[in-house]
Amino acid sequence: MPASYEAVMKLALERGFYFPSCEIYADAPAGFWEYGPTGVGIKNKFIELWRRELVRRDGMMEIDGCQVMSKSVFVASGHLGNFTDPIVKCGKCGSTFRADRFITEKTGEDVPEKMPNEEIDAIIDKKDLKCPNCKGEFGGVSRFNMMFRIGIGPAGEEAYLRPETCQTIFVDFARIFKTMRGRLPLGVAQIGKSFRNEIAPRQSLLRLREFYQAEIEVFCNPNKLDEVPRFEEVKQTILRIQDGPTMKEATAEEAIKLGLVPNRLIAYYLALLVQFYEKTGIDLQKSRFRKLSDEEKAFYATAAFDFEVETSIGWLELVACNYRSDYDLKGHANTSKQNLEVLDPADQTKVLPHIFELSMGIDRSLYTILEHCYYEDKQHDDRVVLGLRPYLAPVLVGVLPLMKKDGLDEKARKIHSDLKLDFDSFYDESGSIGRRYRRLEEVGAPFAVTIDQTTMQDDTVTVRHRDNMQQERVKASELRRYLQESLKQ
Amino acid sequence: MPASYEAVMKLALERGFYFPSCEIYADAPAGFWEYGPTGVGIKNKFIELWRRELVRRDGMMEIDGCQVMSKSVFVASGHLGNFTDPIVKCGKCGSTFRADRFITEKTGEDVPEKMPNEEIDAIIDKKDLKCPNCKGEFGGVSRFNMMFRIGIGPAGEEAYLRPETCQTIFVDFARIFKTMRGRLPLGVAQIGKSFRNEIAPRQSLLRLREFYQAEIEVFCNPNKLDEVPRFEEVKQTILRIQDGPTMKEATAEEAIKLGLVPNRLIAYYLALLVQFYEKTGIDLQKSRFRKLSDEEKAFYATAAFDFEVETSIGWLELVACNYRSDYDLKGHANTSKQNLEVLDPADQTKVLPHIFELSMGIDRSLYTILEHCYYEDKQHDDRVVLGLRPYLAPVLVGVLPLMKKDGLDEKARKIHSDLKLDFDSFYDESGSIGRRYRRLEEVGAPFAVTIDQTTMQDDTVTVRHRDNMQQERVKASELRRYLQESLKQ
Repeated sequence: MPASYEAVMKLALERGFYFPSCEIYADAPAGFWEYGPTGVGIKNKFIELWRRELVRRDGMMEIDGCQVMSKSVFVASGHLGNFTDPIVKCGKCGSTFRADRFITEKTGEDVPEKMPNEEIDAIIDKKDLKCPNCKGEFGGVSRFNMMFRIGIGPAGEEAYLRPETCQTIFVDFARIFKTMRGRLPLGVAQIGKSFRNEIAPRQSLLRLREFYQAEIEVFCNPNKLDEVPRFEEVKQTILRIQDGPTMKEATAEEAIKLGLVPNRLIAYYLALLVQFYEKTGIDLQKSRFRKLSDEEKAFYATAAFDFEVETSIGWLELVACNYRSDYDLKGHANTSKQNLEVLDPADQTKVLPHIFELSMGIDRSLYTILEHCYYEDKQHDDRVVLGLRPYLAPVLVGVLPLMKKDGLDEKARKIHSDLKLDFDSFYDESGSIGRRYRRLEEVGAPFAVTIDQTTMQDDTVTVRHRDNMQQERVKASELRRYLQESLKQ
Repeated sequence: MPASYEAVMKLALERGFYFPSCEIYADAPAGFWEYGPTGVGIKNKFIELWRRELVRRDGMMEIDGCQVMSKSVFVASGHLGNFTDPIVKCGKCGSTFRADRFITEKTGEDVPEKMPNEEIDAIIDKKDLKCPNCKGEFGGVSRFNMMFRIGIGPAGEEAYLRPETCQTIFVDFARIFKTMRGRLPLGVAQIGKSFRNEIAPRQSLLRLREFYQAEIEVFCNPNKLDEVPRFEEVKQTILRIQDGPTMKEATAEEAIKLGLVPNRLIAYYLALLVQFYEKTGIDLQKSRFRKLSDEEKAFYATAAFDFEVETSIGWLELVACNYRSDYDLKGHANTSKQNLEVLDPADQTKVLPHIFELSMGIDRSLYTILEHCYYEDKQHDDRVVLGLRPYLAPVLVGVLPLMKKDGLDEKARKIHSDLKLDFDSFYDESGSIGRRYRRLEEVGAPFAVTIDQTTMQDDTVTVRHRDNMQQERVKASELRRYLQESLKQ
């Protein structure tokens, strides 16, 4: 079985990466998945890499805001009015479907989300589409708001679970900019949960109702989109850009000259993103920035690139890169009656910042890493290997006594104990040594340390490498340094 | 101003630790607070310390589950029936109050949450209590469920935001135990948000409607609560236990002998918790485990200790340590019709595990760290200092050119740039050097590195220490090692 959605799912379920939420209950709602111990391991390390390669590298500020937000926020953001999916309901059995997707699945016809209800109705009539469950007639298309509403306090005051983390950043911008002595361009970043009441969640981590985002909102002076001193550091980074049918590969610098990317600010952040994903183990030869057409763009975006990666089930959007202009701050300024302009000290002018965002889906990114790192080794009994980078592996090192006697297990436990606070070490004494190696390979552990009779004589251990299965003897006292070295990025 | 709630709040607002959510909007609901950049820094480091000192030290498994859970979960857990607060509503103006707290505030009389509604009504009658807003009469006491309800999908299927993270752990237990080859006792840990629809949220981070928990659920064989081999490692740890009016200090080993703690398993985890908090900078001389009386215990607990710490506004409960017996797994097994027993391989018996938990409030812990580390230095112009441990400080080192000329700023930027990926380094060139030191002290940065004329000659910098303000000259090339050393725990 090659790397595929099914192979990754099997591994995920068997080795504790992810699994359905509330699965012991019949009323477990679809679209909710949990991370098990190995999933948490890779997720936390992915987030640390994101912090290092984007937040710290660029000097961004990271915040962590609430998931519940007041009604006004979503009046201002447009989500109360615009964040809807078209749905149709069967008049006979009551089954509800997402209209655009349903038509596409049944007829192959492409229906944009934003198509007016009447036009969608007309297609359903023309194609004579019926309820697939009971053959009943559909009622007319209506709009379903994808936000989850909640009621606060005994009076049930109207509030919502945020459908994107960035709204927190926009609403907090004025305070952050002031108290943290911000300067444009300023990146503000956030990791957190967002919630969308999808009609038809599916494919485990790929379309969830509760999901993790890592969003970066860059506040910038719209008159200075080419004034990015750090652009020098990334100008040689290769960007792969798909514009309609054309696929072009160019350095960040060339991409601007060729008009593929509108300015240095956008090119700089696209390049940082590429540099980040290069370190995740995803194959960037299978990636592209797809320039969105006007029909495809979100309602707030004036220019948009989707960072997409090819997987066994097609191209997945991992990051939406949107130039949101002043849509957000203008909306919040108008609705809240606050002045959200800031001073640009360079020329002492007041400016309402524009926003360029990198809105990353963490769950999808993790799925893609797992799939791209998964392989079955034909040379060696089809062993399943997750070729994760050491700094992303949930287990860095397995510590294995060759046998549970002659003090080997005691010695191994001692070595594990010396390592475990600073490294993700896993002690395993049960089963044959071969089976123990297999289990470690399946969770992507780069190293297995075996304690054998020789260890008892000269205090050396064998270090076995996951990918080539080579072993080398290393002094036990050198292990910490050895592992530390392997984590360098 | 000594360390006080007000002083910490002022610092938090001015220096980006935390602030109210949605604050630009009039309809911002109470009980929601955000972490700013410095708050995120200390929070993330606190969580890393928790992972190191509890999860990795004990070999626990960490999971990350959904916040939205199905109705059945809370039928089984008892929250749908029991997780309520008594409320009274004014018949005239409609103001609603939490009845027990309202009576205590007005009369000083202690009213347990669980007091039957009729008895609370009787007190309100007897004391002739009226609405403080309009002097209107109250209607009868009723019960308000503190869970937030949400509707899933177009049909609005009933689900809830979890009021405690541990429910995820209980529901996932069978899969985790099986796929991860668990053995009792097994600690399963989780960091995440929980939600409670408090009637009267207050005191910023101390009573929130959306809050962070770090929960550890230890699954154990109830017949083997004294079989804890690692107990040896902690038996000398001092526990301070308050039982009714009596306060006793004893080692974990003595505490068992004296009957202060019922068994080794509980004593072991209480000791681990003390060792963890010792590293946070909280003054443990101001801490206690308070043994709860039967009236005070949560509805699921058979034995309970609250880990409390004294602050300027009284004793704060930071961790609830509950022996939950088989209440949770029995409830979920009955409601889901799943067998949640596991095999104890030592004697080949099937057992329904009991649970001991350490349920930690992250927000309250962070508040307490800030307050305990805050001081005003009378010797030096009342400078405000946050004496955070280096491994918890949001900024580890400030890099400051003495002046913005002669290449000092360029050199300083270079040094900052060399450090920033691996350390929390902050570059600051604006304002007098004294003001820049003050700002660093206020966010708890242990070190300030200054680049001066001598740097340009011999490549040394001065390292200034936050607490004693002493400076020493260090080779620029040695800075990384110097900082690395300071982070050792």
